[in-house]
Amino acid sequence: MNPTTPEHQLFSGEGAWAAFRAWLADQQFSQLVTLVDANTLRYCWPLVQQQLDLAGDPIEMPAGEANKNLHTAATLWRTLMDKGVDRHSLVLNLGGGVVTDMGGFIASTFKRGIPFVHIPTSLLGMVDAAIGGKTGIDLDHTKNIVGTFCKPDALVIDPVFLKTLPLEERRSGFAEMLKHGLVQDDSLWRDLSTLRTFDALDPEYVLRAIAAKIKVVDQDPREGGFRKILNFGHTLGHALESRALQSGVPIRHGEAVAAGMLLEAWLSMTHNRLAWVDWIIIRETIQRFFLPLDFSLLDPDGCMPYVIQDKKNRAGAIRLVMLRRPGKTEWDVEVTQDQIRAALLVYPTLF
Amino acid sequence: MNPTTPEHQLFSGEGAWAAFRAWLADQQFSQLVTLVDANTLRYCWPLVQQQLDLAGDPIEMPAGEANKNLHTAATLWRTLMDKGVDRHSLVLNLGGGVVTDMGGFIASTFKRGIPFVHIPTSLLGMVDAAIGGKTGIDLDHTKNIVGTFCKPDALVIDPVFLKTLPLEERRSGFAEMLKHGLVQDDSLWRDLSTLRTFDALDPEYVLRAIAAKIKVVDQDPREGGFRKILNFGHTLGHALESRALQSGVPIRHGEAVAAGMLLEAWLSMTHNRLAWVDWIIIRETIQRFFLPLDFSLLDPDGCMPYVIQDKKNRAGAIRLVMLRRPGKTEWDVEVTQDQIRAALLVYPTLF
Repeated sequence: MNPTTPEHQLFSGEGAWAAFRAWLADQQFSQLVTLVDANTLRYCWPLVQQQLDLAGDPIEMPAGEANKNLHTAATLWRTLMDKGVDRHSLVLNLGGGVVTDMGGFIASTFKRGIPFVHIPTSLLGMVDAAIGGKTGIDLDHTKNIVGTFCKPDALVIDPVFLKTLPLEERRSGFAEMLKHGLVQDDSLWRDLSTLRTFDALDPEYVLRAIAAKIKVVDQDPREGGFRKILNFGHTLGHALESRALQSGVPIRHGEAVAAGMLLEAWLSMTHNRLAWVDWIIIRETIQRFFLPLDFSLLDPDGCMPYVIQDKKNRAGAIRLVMLRRPGKTEWDVEVTQDQIRAALLVYPTLF
Repeated sequence: MNPTTPEHQLFSGEGAWAAFRAWLADQQFSQLVTLVDANTLRYCWPLVQQQLDLAGDPIEMPAGEANKNLHTAATLWRTLMDKGVDRHSLVLNLGGGVVTDMGGFIASTFKRGIPFVHIPTSLLGMVDAAIGGKTGIDLDHTKNIVGTFCKPDALVIDPVFLKTLPLEERRSGFAEMLKHGLVQDDSLWRDLSTLRTFDALDPEYVLRAIAAKIKVVDQDPREGGFRKILNFGHTLGHALESRALQSGVPIRHGEAVAAGMLLEAWLSMTHNRLAWVDWIIIRETIQRFFLPLDFSLLDPDGCMPYVIQDKKNRAGAIRLVMLRRPGKTEWDVEVTQDQIRAALLVYPTLF
């Protein structure tokens, strides 16, 4: 929002809440409103309400990606109007990626943009969705097709929220941590890929993954070039996620991205970018942490429309991020529809 | 869009189309799509199609402020998806303020922002709506409550389009020209306020009004302070326009702004900012060009909710731009609801 704020005003570690309280007092917002879903209302709101001494009820949106749509956005904009929210009010987005994507979108477009802060409560939110200023909603099952680039005015990271997450949710966020390592931080990748389990994930790894992402997005906030490396695994991952949403049996973002990374690493290998030995380690690591997707999801005809719609494409050509080795990538690599089809068809044979 | 483009890439005057063609060739967009309404499809598209040698049909949105809503936006986003529009495509917005507000909004949020160019065809569009990077749509009769700050990549101004406008449309744009003079360019105000008629408006005045607005918005693109002066006449003007829209008998933006300027000049005078003699000249000038509104529109209870919703307010206090003299203003002046009521009640006695 404010061009004079530092790139990422991050409150994390010990004393994070006290520092954030001081920052809030300093900013003198005319009003604070908090956006939650049913889960964060129950598990996270009591802590935040107490830490920030907030009066009044939060605004609740229906949980889940299926509700990250225009209908929910319209309801929330109306709620902001009813509450007399003005350009000097602050929206606190307390939740996972769905809440922060939606809350960022409605705040960045309400009265042409009002301040907002993300308090991510999921691992995926902390290491990915809440960082970097991408906001968005889905339209007709196409993910984040409508949205803005708009950085939150601040971020509060409290790993205590991770304890409230089911295992599958932590697994989903772990996929993005692996990705941050793979595309940009070889040492993070090595540490994570040698873990036997992510059950008791060390908060230090979470903060390292956050740092890796911030490093990328601060160099290229509007994704003119370099930031595209964060899309590794996402061209096919998003297509699989959209396809699953459309089929009525949604899968988690991280599960889709794990499968996408597997396929895009395979394409990187068959395109002579990635060495065989690196490919084998990546494949083995992903298979250690993630179960195979239902093979019927990888039907090429069903997936292709979503692949073609990808935001990184240009003039109809499909563009991928390819891996050269862990920590080193190449972006805007054009591939044909036939090559994408081959990757989708080869998936069942990788297990 | 692109932070490296000059503040306003403006193509106007002789040779404007040739220069714009050269610019387009230079940018190498992957695709051009044009947004029109029924009026510009009929009266303006043939000229643009020929000048730019465009193939294919434009995208048509329903004409009129009543259609500047979320429903139309959703339809247009879907059309962009269907046409395979990508981040390197260009949206050409050919129309008045409704088309440029809507086209700017959908382009600035599609795939988190794609390039767009405004070709305003109305006087209001040329001197106001298309300049300065405000985009927006209405929600529940509240004007531009959802939108973005996003500058067009270029502007093309061709006064030939003004010949296609009905008199009332030119009158509407003339209100904004008067305002640009009043708030920021005393010499423009003096020239315009001594005209006997705006029937055959000299294109030179149009370009001077554009220059006056550009000067303001380039200093303060996100309306942190100075740019607020452009809202003179708009706190009450917008409320009257919203109220008329809600009543089912919409009035033109400029008519509403003319009434708003009259009332806000009266408030400036009664608040000891504006001298009596300046007030008299302003009143006489507005009455020379604009007819009184239907008095029933100025019902305080009906207008107040819209006044309170105004984007410039802070913490519930109503903030006005006040005139000190032509060319000199003061912004963020707080007034009470009672003072607003008084202005609305005094309106019929000003004629």
